Amino acid sequence: MLTFYYSPNACSLASHIALEEAGAAYEPRRVDFGAGQQKSADYMALNPKARVPALVTSRGVLTETPAILVFIAQSFPEARLAPLDDAFALAEMQAFNSYLCSTVHVAHAHKVRGTRWADEESSFADMRRKVPETMSACAELLETHLLKGPWVMGEAFTVADPYLFTIVQWMKGDGVDLAAFPRLSAHRANMAERPSVKKILARESAA
Amino acid sequence: MLTFYYSPNACSLASHIALEEAGAAYEPRRVDFGAGQQKSADYMALNPKARVPALVTSRGVLTETPAILVFIAQSFPEARLAPLDDAFALAEMQAFNSYLCSTVHVAHAHKVRGTRWADEESSFADMRRKVPETMSACAELLETHLLKGPWVMGEAFTVADPYLFTIVQWMKGDGVDLAAFPRLSAHRANMAERPSVKKILARESAA
Ligand SMILES: N[C@@H](CCC(=O)N[C@@H](CS)C(=O)NCC(=O)O)C(=O)O
Ligand SMILES: N[C@@H](CCC(=O)N[C@@H](CS)C(=O)NCC(=O)O)C(=O)O
Repeated sequence: MLTFYYSPNACSLASHIALEEAGAAYEPRRVDFGAGQQKSADYMALNPKARVPALVTSRGVLTETPAILVFIAQSFPEARLAPLDDAFALAEMQAFNSYLCSTVHVAHAHKVRGTRWADEESSFADMRRKVPETMSACAELLETHLLKGPWVMGEAFTVADPYLFTIVQWMKGDGVDLAAFPRLSAHRANMAERPSVKKILARESAA
Repeated sequence: MLTFYYSPNACSLASHIALEEAGAAYEPRRVDFGAGQQKSADYMALNPKARVPALVTSRGVLTETPAILVFIAQSFPEARLAPLDDAFALAEMQAFNSYLCSTVHVAHAHKVRGTRWADEESSFADMRRKVPETMSACAELLETHLLKGPWVMGEAFTVADPYLFTIVQWMKGDGVDLAAFPRLSAHRANMAERPSVKKILARESAA
């Protein structure tokens, strides 16, 4: 039995949807950022990074979205959530996830997590102002070069799709004009139709 | 035949060493950051992200260090550079790589790449000032929780090792007191002994 730690609308949404798509048996546990629960001694004993997601398995705790996503795909091969038998295709999917993790998520985080990288109010304001520009540039690269369509990897749905969906959900609040990105918009609409996505969004938005 | 694009002492060093450890046949090509070659039309046709590393394969171009590292391990299985038959262990290795890519590398990049996330000189100065603190915090997490020792994953050398080495090489210049981190220092010393590392450092530092 897996235990999955998430926070609503955080990057953990990607793994949350992937667990559901995999048909995994797991217990979801909400981490309350408002109450600073990610920094509690109990949670940090589990994940010293003080972040979500964290997936507790019988072998130990896994963190980091790209790692958890491939672990889910490998643990539930019958769900066919990654090109596991093709090293090149798997690397393309991983490159997509790594770009989201190291560039797009990081650009987004400069809106409200500026204290990670600076100390002055003026720097936080400067970082916040730039987010629409940086996130739009990421959207442009995703739209033009990285999203094959209709799904990230083409015809096959993979764990990269809930990850893209999670980040596209953030874009509107980040000042990105989604109408300028028809392929990302279509991806988002296709995702929103999936039962897994409806179920998890309902769970995450419940009080 | 693979073609590998790198820049000296950039994060591409990790994949460069991994290719050598794998015994891969590849042609190394230097990208001259001083001349802005990463932003040339030719290079961007290959990698629209305008970054290194990029690995050109017969099937297409791969980017992103964590993706390239697992691709190398899977393409040269006889070199045993990753726990390919154990989904949990592979996910642990990937979580390590993802942390380096999305947190440690990003913290380091705030020293000289502040224009990615802000516009004002005062913000760049603020970001630069904080790098010793953020990189030391990353070193502490690596030292205490993530590096199993002697190699990243324990007794087995994997592609995570050249990646850790690459980032530990940056730490001194980032104001981290490496003497405070004996396990990271030992890892660095062990790596420096490997023929692959000697060969690639010599190649990258040659004019
Ligand atoms: N590289 C990690 C990043 C994890 C991360 O930054 N999680 C955020 C939520 S999106 C978090 O837990 N933030 C809590 C905090 O900063 O206190 C991943 O992709 O899983
Ligand atoms: N997430 C990417 C990051 C690649 C990256 O940032 N590369 C740097 C060198 S360490 C680069 O090419 N910088 C050139 C520039 O910013 O113009 C990876 O891990 O491969």
